[in-house]
Amino acid sequence: MNQDTIAAIATPMGEGGIAVIRVSGDEAVPVCDKIFAGKSKLTDVPTHTVNYGYIRDPETGARVEESLVTVMRAPRSFTKEDVVEISCHGGFVSVRKVLDLLLEHGARLAEPGEFTKRAFLNGRIDLSQAEAVIDLIRAKSDRAFRIALKQSEGSLSKTIKGLRHRLVELMAHIEVNIDYPEHDVEEMTNAFIKEKCADALSDIERMLTTAQQGKILREGLVTAIVGRPNVGKSSLLNTLAQEERAIVTEIAGTTRDVVEEYVHVNGIPLKLLDTAGIRETSDLVEQIGVEKSRQALSDADLILFVCNGAEPLQPDEYVLIDQLKDRQVIAIINKQDLPQLIEEEVLKEAFGEDRVVRMSLLAQQGIADLEKAIASIFFSGQVESSDLTYVSNARHIHLLKQARSALTEAHEAAEAFVPIDMIQIDIRNAWEHLGEIIGDSVSESLIDQIFSQFCLGK
Amino acid sequence: MNQDTIAAIATPMGEGGIAVIRVSGDEAVPVCDKIFAGKSKLTDVPTHTVNYGYIRDPETGARVEESLVTVMRAPRSFTKEDVVEISCHGGFVSVRKVLDLLLEHGARLAEPGEFTKRAFLNGRIDLSQAEAVIDLIRAKSDRAFRIALKQSEGSLSKTIKGLRHRLVELMAHIEVNIDYPEHDVEEMTNAFIKEKCADALSDIERMLTTAQQGKILREGLVTAIVGRPNVGKSSLLNTLAQEERAIVTEIAGTTRDVVEEYVHVNGIPLKLLDTAGIRETSDLVEQIGVEKSRQALSDADLILFVCNGAEPLQPDEYVLIDQLKDRQVIAIINKQDLPQLIEEEVLKEAFGEDRVVRMSLLAQQGIADLEKAIASIFFSGQVESSDLTYVSNARHIHLLKQARSALTEAHEAAEAFVPIDMIQIDIRNAWEHLGEIIGDSVSESLIDQIFSQFCLGK
Repeated sequence: MNQDTIAAIATPMGEGGIAVIRVSGDEAVPVCDKIFAGKSKLTDVPTHTVNYGYIRDPETGARVEESLVTVMRAPRSFTKEDVVEISCHGGFVSVRKVLDLLLEHGARLAEPGEFTKRAFLNGRIDLSQAEAVIDLIRAKSDRAFRIALKQSEGSLSKTIKGLRHRLVELMAHIEVNIDYPEHDVEEMTNAFIKEKCADALSDIERMLTTAQQGKILREGLVTAIVGRPNVGKSSLLNTLAQEERAIVTEIAGTTRDVVEEYVHVNGIPLKLLDTAGIRETSDLVEQIGVEKSRQALSDADLILFVCNGAEPLQPDEYVLIDQLKDRQVIAIINKQDLPQLIEEEVLKEAFGEDRVVRMSLLAQQGIADLEKAIASIFFSGQVESSDLTYVSNARHIHLLKQARSALTEAHEAAEAFVPIDMIQIDIRNAWEHLGEIIGDSVSESLIDQIFSQFCLGK
Repeated sequence: MNQDTIAAIATPMGEGGIAVIRVSGDEAVPVCDKIFAGKSKLTDVPTHTVNYGYIRDPETGARVEESLVTVMRAPRSFTKEDVVEISCHGGFVSVRKVLDLLLEHGARLAEPGEFTKRAFLNGRIDLSQAEAVIDLIRAKSDRAFRIALKQSEGSLSKTIKGLRHRLVELMAHIEVNIDYPEHDVEEMTNAFIKEKCADALSDIERMLTTAQQGKILREGLVTAIVGRPNVGKSSLLNTLAQEERAIVTEIAGTTRDVVEEYVHVNGIPLKLLDTAGIRETSDLVEQIGVEKSRQALSDADLILFVCNGAEPLQPDEYVLIDQLKDRQVIAIINKQDLPQLIEEEVLKEAFGEDRVVRMSLLAQQGIADLEKAIASIFFSGQVESSDLTYVSNARHIHLLKQARSALTEAHEAAEAFVPIDMIQIDIRNAWEHLGEIIGDSVSESLIDQIFSQFCLGK
């Protein structure tokens, strides 16, 4: 493949000690040589070496930046192409200048995700591995990161390839029967198809059961804290934030429009509706009619409903209980350090026995109980998958579901003695849906769409 | 020197393609070896090579991250110590995990600027070069960056060292006269001292004259846009922002409290009072009593006072003219496309002939005139220093001024025939002040203070 040479700033913008500009393509080394002045020419240095020198403007000869330049020759590189990484002083002007020089001397600005896309197109990784690279970058918790790392190493690909291999064998078997019908009894073939479909279905089912957990680990459990004023919402927020120092307090996205706050409870990332929002919702009960608060509540996967145990339930709390009774709610009865007057039974009846937690945020009591309640919602009674091959990507989940329904149809068709060449079509569909997960038989536009979610320089 | 091993995340926090963790110290390589699993041990690889492998938790054996690890052995490194740079997937969790492992296995978290501090303490660079490293990172414009690069290469050090050398020679000369007074005539010695002091003073003076420009290039010219509502303040802001696409639209500092916006006019960075502020000050004339607006105005180095040329000056504008008449003001008479009714003479009298610029922002006319006016304020009639050895750092300026006053005293003392051993003291003071610029004879607390301004990982 004759690939043009792409360049991009690979480190986040901001003041930092080091910034890295990444260059990849057939001409990566000669292009960089044009702007590099070191002891040797980069075309002459061995692969995987770091070379000290200056970046200079070849037209004026002016030194632009002091830098360390790493050369990694194909195929031993991230993209399987020649890759050069220019490491220079962090900061805005310097990296821009170096990038501008590269663009003036033969490189093209990389699209978001284009380096990883080349790794995929050049066959170093498959599509599910490439997608895991985004997850690695965006991971909000250790557990999510471990899952993504596993997927980037090809764990999901291996499972999917195994499944597809079995479906191919099944299709070959059917093919033989279509071509040489005299060799077999139709009933036997149908039984065989049913058994194989059921096997594959149970594997897919198992993957889908952990998908909800995977998705939460990947994206966080969207959590709203609600309650009347002065019941302890802010204290709860502070307690959660202290529990494990939030790894991510601010996600600087490309737009910077949204500030998200994450806290981790037993390794489960809670994506809190933004702090400002929580502060604003101090009058949430009163403002329940306000569209914004309503929206916040309806977006949440989990609602932490904080009450003051030292008071009877108030009329507006009864209204809220009624509105929330079909949602995932944990009712927190705070202020256990005071004499209790609250109607605990009402809460238990509305949300369930195990969803009512007694706490004293002042005395820092009941935190373990709250964590247990959150974990029980997360795992929904399932044990944690120890092999960490969670399916977490919405695209993968969608394709698995499509494969499931195709196989279910095949299974039913086999039961109803539908002609096997018709059943073959369903099985092929399932095989293709699974193939799309790892990037077999996917369209160019889908590939473009997937990689456009990446950040620049990856 | 036996240095403990330090580690820090060297790239800005945020989602990016690459994040780098930097490790430096005697044990940098063995510490990294504990958590690295690659083809060879890092202790065995040649210096300045990049090594592919996994970071793993040595206790659990679990893979934590895929990474490229660069080994640079002393003294050919940034700190002159053994340095290892671990390049891994950008993102929050990954870098934190790798850093945590390093801290668990023998490294200590680096203080801000500690890598550069070590480069200084280990004698690779002097203090003014180290300070230039911050300037490189923080540079707001090409010109500021070029000045910082020059300084980091030692241009300022060279000048200062030359000056000090001459002062040392002078002091030696005086010393001889003190010890062997019979060898010389006092008057001749005084004349000699006067001449040498005058020489050094003129060099210092020359450096200080460019300092104001250097400071502006480094920090930006703090600029406020004021005027009555609907005179064209927002249009002016937009025009300036388009003129040269702002390199820096947002500075993500450590606190993220302050958002600063920069535009560049002929390479001169204008640090605009934050956009929100400008929008707010649309009623600035009315709000002139408001503390915040008053503060904004008093902080500004340059005030762009926008008026509507199609109207006579309004009473509140007369108030403003009176308040601003001793400041650096450019009066912009906008709306030249309409018949003019404004009392232009009033503005010229208050601010000076060459400080009144006619514009039509609607027709995009007069922009060149405005640029010329801004440039004339910046250069204050001086030509641009072509050798780019601007003194821009406030600490350096302060020390140069102290050296100047010590030498002035020496000069005056020589003129007044003060005994030469008294004069000697002044000269020594000047010599010491200059020494502090390059880090000779500076206290440990000052060093700590200087490096604490750095970002982590540098």
